[in-house]
Order: sequence, then structure tokens, then C-alpha cells
Amino acid sequence: MKFGGTSVADADRIKRAARRIVAQREAGNRVVAVLSARGKTTDELIAMADEVSPHPDRREMDMLLSTGERISCALCAMAINDLGHRAISLTGSQAGIVTDTSHTKARILDVRADRIREALDQDRIVLVAGFQGVSTSRDVTTLGRGGSDTTAVALAAAMNAKVCEIYTDVRGVYSADPRIVPDARKLPMVSFEEMLEMAASGAKVLQLRSVEYARNHGVRIHCRASFEDGPGTFVVGEEDTMEHPLITAVTHATDEARITLLGVPDRPGAAAAIFGALADAGCNVDTIIQNEPLEEGRDAEVSFTIPREDLLAAEGALQSVTGDLGIARVDTDREIGKVSIVGAGMRSHPGVAAKVFRVLAGEGINIEMISTSPIKISCVIRSEVVPQAVRALHDAFELGAGTIAHDGGPR
Amino acid sequence: MKFGGTSVADADRIKRAARRIVAQREAGNRVVAVLSARGKTTDELIAMADEVSPHPDRREMDMLLSTGERISCALCAMAINDLGHRAISLTGSQAGIVTDTSHTKARILDVRADRIREALDQDRIVLVAGFQGVSTSRDVTTLGRGGSDTTAVALAAAMNAKVCEIYTDVRGVYSADPRIVPDARKLPMVSFEEMLEMAASGAKVLQLRSVEYARNHGVRIHCRASFEDGPGTFVVGEEDTMEHPLITAVTHATDEARITLLGVPDRPGAAAAIFGALADAGCNVDTIIQNEPLEEGRDAEVSFTIPREDLLAAEGALQSVTGDLGIARVDTDREIGKVSIVGAGMRSHPGVAAKVFRVLAGEGINIEMISTSPIKISCVIRSEVVPQAVRALHDAFELGAGTIAHDGGPR
Repeated sequence: MKFGGTSVADADRIKRAARRIVAQREAGNRVVAVLSARGKTTDELIAMADEVSPHPDRREMDMLLSTGERISCALCAMAINDLGHRAISLTGSQAGIVTDTSHTKARILDVRADRIREALDQDRIVLVAGFQGVSTSRDVTTLGRGGSDTTAVALAAAMNAKVCEIYTDVRGVYSADPRIVPDARKLPMVSFEEMLEMAASGAKVLQLRSVEYARNHGVRIHCRASFEDGPGTFVVGEEDTMEHPLITAVTHATDEARITLLGVPDRPGAAAAIFGALADAGCNVDTIIQNEPLEEGRDAEVSFTIPREDLLAAEGALQSVTGDLGIARVDTDREIGKVSIVGAGMRSHPGVAAKVFRVLAGEGINIEMISTSPIKISCVIRSEVVPQAVRALHDAFELGAGTIAHDGGPR
Repeated sequence: MKFGGTSVADADRIKRAARRIVAQREAGNRVVAVLSARGKTTDELIAMADEVSPHPDRREMDMLLSTGERISCALCAMAINDLGHRAISLTGSQAGIVTDTSHTKARILDVRADRIREALDQDRIVLVAGFQGVSTSRDVTTLGRGGSDTTAVALAAAMNAKVCEIYTDVRGVYSADPRIVPDARKLPMVSFEEMLEMAASGAKVLQLRSVEYARNHGVRIHCRASFEDGPGTFVVGEEDTMEHPLITAVTHATDEARITLLGVPDRPGAAAAIFGALADAGCNVDTIIQNEPLEEGRDAEVSFTIPREDLLAAEGALQSVTGDLGIARVDTDREIGKVSIVGAGMRSHPGVAAKVFRVLAGEGINIEMISTSPIKISCVIRSEVVPQAVRALHDAFELGAGTIAHDGGPR
């Protein structure tokens, strides 16, 4: 069981999480629960570091940030003990989460869960501080944003758990963001592949990285609400999904930016130099389009999207490259969004892309860039028309709760 | 070097502590610094636990409370790195502070400082989270109130340090509390024995336990101000003190309570039953007086003082005992104080006690109980006359800055 920051934000919520954990124990399950830091704790710790140092040392940042989850776990263990069960909280290090030495974004190398097993054998409920581990150099490390989901999935894999339950402040994974599409339907089940595409294209319920880990290790995820009972969404292997609907969900993002490089010399290595510099600066490049020059020897145009928050870093990283390559101009656009449709059934149905383009055209929405995978079609559009595009596609593919009686195929 | 909670309370003070640490490094010393939790952090964490649980589990309390010092250390390490030095912060566990399993009041069993030595050999400044260790069962433990002083002294002993500098918000150890006696003098040097008596009788600069540890391991303590340069007070072995003044200081306490048991049966085991029950309840009994009955077989009267905050616990503990023993009456008095004079030179000078009683009598102050050691005389008095008594004794024994030219002996 994993509880996110909003699910442990105050004393009442911690007690509620404790009751949910105890209920699972009393249902006859052995329980390991991973907790995030309470509400805004991590942001407050980052603010403290910024006050003290302009460029906080990353090892020390990890020592600092890892305290938040420990606080949550200790408090929840107290609450569980009060409910008449025996709980024990463990740090990432005590839980055996061994990582590499990349501070602030460490990767899990191994899970040595002996101490967890020992505690379970003593009939204890085990609480593990999420988001953290211990490096091969015996230093405290953190796993980066969303790291607690990864902790939970990694422990579920190591313990061979029946299920990894991710408790959040939403009821599950929806066919679209219910704030934009009131008719959006909670999905009973999605495949890892679909979830990966959804997470990559804007769905915020589960972190991309934890879904990848779950797929690679075959960990069944149950994504559900911490504030009410009832099933959420199961994320499972494709072989376990009952049916393959053509389209599963519409996802979106409104916080992207686009950079266009004009006059990129048409010679080998130009793209490598550009995207190498961006990677070094930690920019997450999403969709890339390169217009081939019409005649050989003429300059090309390269466009790509990045999260808006990476824009400054990207501009900095490009400065030296543009000089070296003799790039004529760099244009940036801060008001970029993206709408995507995801569905495993798409593989065997041509014509989905054509329908997407037709729907958006019918709304008068201009598609600026397109990227596809076998189970996803993404269109880069102006950010202000994203809600309109989401509603139109959700409606056209009949994904809503009111239309689910239909087969969901293209009309 | 050890910095207390007020010395690391905010970003500016953390940077100031960082500069002091760097200055010692640049003076050619290898530095290990122990930090407390920032300002009110520990109280806030305790409040969080109280919100979640009426009787927080002690193991989990330690997991919770140990985070405060880690935050201080990580932040200070960042600040030191910004000053061009290389710092590394270590948890109590990483620093090799091995304790017993008494959660919330663990005792240090061993200091395995390999990792500290390793870091010093790599020319690093080492910051250690105070107040905590790791138990022989691999759990996080805390050392109880004032535990960071003990961490510092224990590390100084294990590292064979030249000196253990304790930085606080006062300039050193004074001949009396300067808030009560404006003329009080900062003492350049006191012996461990004197410091122990002073700490036990109300001086709050150093924790009793850390002074005991320092005496047992011969650790030279330098107690000084974090907000200014200049020497403070050295606490050293008696063989190292230059002179043995008759009286070193006047100490006091105003937060005590007295319990008087009337009609205690005069039979063996009565006192053992009473004080055994109090010890089990965690009450720190200080002065005890038993009035022998005038005739054999008649009942005795037993009086003792305790910290006022222990009064409720003491009354609870006594309830069953008084019934068993048939004690006639229990009187309590919440307004009890104590004034003490401490001085190693007292050993060889009779007449000091007589002078103390004469001075207090001259002030019209009634002495309710007396307790002595070879280097201390304590008088239990009403708490409201404590300041008057302190000033009178400080003056009579000529301890003030204006009178230090005299030999300080009794006139």
C-alpha cells in the first residue's frame, strides 16, 4: 500500500491511512505500506535549503529531503499501534532499498528486504519511508519526483506482493481529466503499455517510472482513492486485460513550450549536438520534428517541445550550440499544449489517426506537430484550445460514462 | 564543536555557525561539528506526535525526533560547501554512535568513528546529527534532553579531540545567573566536579550527563558563545584548574515542589517502597529528609523535593504506596525553590555552611531543608525568595566582577 503526500497531510489523514492499513491486515493480508512526505513538507525543506545556499550540494539535499517521509512513517506507526496492531517504521536504508550514487535522482539497484520479512514474520505492519534509499557508498539518496511510487512498486516486486495499491486523492485512472470532461469514466483496468503512454502524455495519477518498473517486474498495481472504499483502476499486463478497447483515454498537457531552430546546417551530428546539450542540461525533450530541406545542402528546421519549466535551462543550453553550428534563429513559444489518445486496440485498427485529425479540424483546431506510437496519437496544439480538444475527442470516441454501452469504436 | 538549537535556528545563524566551523578549519584544526535541531523543531515534532497518538510509541518517537538534527546538519553542510570547504553530514548511525535499546533515553555503548576518520582523512569537515544513535537492534534511538552535548563529548572522547567546544547563546559559565545578579562574573575555568554540582543544582549551561561523560573520559570542554569570539569557560579536570577558589558559583532553581508524607510507619522497607514507586514513575527525587521518630515505634515524617513538572506523576505513584503502608497524610507544596553554593575549595574550609545560614538568616529567609556534598551546600527555600537569596550569597562570598580582586574567602 502506498499513500501519497495529500493522503498523509495532517493528523486526521494519517489516522485515516492507519485505519485503511489496519483494515487490510485484519482482512488477513500481510501489509507493507510506503508513505510520502506530508503535504508541503518537501517544498518547505527545499525552501530552507534555498535560503541557506544558492546551489545546495546534492548529497546534502538528499540528507535533508529524506526526513519528510520518515516523519510520515513514524507518525503513522504511532497511529497504527493505537489501533491495537504492531507497526514498525523503516527508513529506505533500513528497508534495504539500495541505489546508485546519483544523488537527488538515484536509481534502485537492489532491494534487500530481509528486515521487512523479519518484521512481517513477527506479525508487524511495516511502514517504509518512500522516495529514498541508501547508496552503495552508504549515503542517503532520494529517487526524484514520484519516487515513492517507485519505492512501492520495487518493494512489491521484491516481496512478490499480491498487489501494489497506490492510494491517491483521485478515485483511479479516468478516460479523461474529470475537471475538463465531467462525463469522464473511471477505467476498471488499463494495461501497463497504455498507462505508460498516458503517464507520458499528461496523466498525473501514476509516475511513468513506477509504471515502467511495474511492467518490467510484472507488479499488479491498484490505483485507488484514499478517502473512500471501492475499487479504483487496476494496471496489469496486457495478457490480463479482459478486452482491448480501441481507445482507452484522452490525455492532455497544457504546460509545454516549443523551441524552433531555424537554419540548422544539414550535416551529420547537428541534431546530436543540439539534443546532447539539452540532455546535459536535464531538459526532457518530448516531440521532435525536423523538416528535411527541400534541396540537398540547404538548411533544415528543427522543432521540439519541452515542459515549460525547462524552458530557461533549454535556452541556456542552446546558446553555445547555436553559435558552434551557426544556427540562424531560435524561436520559442510558451503557450503550447498537447492532446493524446491512447488505446491498445489502436494497433489493429487503422483510421484512428484520420479520425483524430478530422475531429480537431471540425473544431477549427490547428495541429502544429504530431507524434505517434503503436497505441498513442499525440497532437501538439495551442494550450488555450486543449480543453476543447479533449472534450471533442472524448465525445467522438464515445469514452464517456453515458456512452459506454456502445462498443467505443469509431463511428 | 557543538552548536545548540538557538545557534542554528534560522538560515543566518546556520551560515554563522558554518563560518565559525570554517574558521577553525582554516586555523589548521580538523573539525567534527555536532548540531542540534533548529530552534523549536523538536517541540513541533512532539506536537505532531501528540496530535496523532495519545501515547506515542517510543521507538517511533525516536524515528520522528531524529529528523530535526539531520535537517540542521544537511543545511549547515551546504553552507560550508559554499564557503569553499568540503563538508559531509552524517546521521548518528553513520557517525557510529551505538546505543542501547532504551528508546527516547538511550545510553551510548560505543563510538565506532571509522567513517568520521575516513572523511577527515579526505580533508572534509564532518557534521554529525546530535542527540541520536543507532541501537544494537539497528533502530534509530535518541539520547534524551541535552543529548547533543553528550554526542559531542562522546565523539571528542572517541576521536581523542584537543577540546570539545560547546557553542551556546551565553558567553560561558557564570558565578550566578546574570539575569538575577547583574554583577555575575564569567568563570574562566571550573572543574568537572564543580560543573556537575552546578548542573545538578540548577545551572543550565551544560547538561549533567555530558559533564559526567566528559569527566569519566577526561574530555576538556570549552563552553562559549556562538554569537561572538573570545574565550568562554573551560571545564577541566581538577588537576588542571589553576586554583581552588573557596566558592565558585551560586546556583538556583525555582521550579521545584515538595511532598511531605506524615505518619510513615517506622519499619524497615517503608522508605524503599516509597522511593521505589517514585523511581518507577520516572520522578527525579532531589533532597530527602526523614525525621526520626522521637520514640521507637512512633511514626516518622518523610519530606522530599522533585521538579515541579514531576508532581502529578509523583502523586499518582504514591497513591498505592500510601494505602499499603497506611500513611496518614500527603502534603504537597508547589512553590519550592533551592539556592546552592558550589566550590571545590570548600572541602578544606569548615565554616562555609555556617556563613550560608547566617547570610540567609540576615535576609529573613527561612531554610526548609538542607543537603550538602563535599563541594556544595544546598538550601531549600520558598521559590519567591530565591532571587534575593542568590544575590545575598553572591555578594557575601564576593563572587562579583567588582570584587574579584579579593581572595573570595569568607570574611
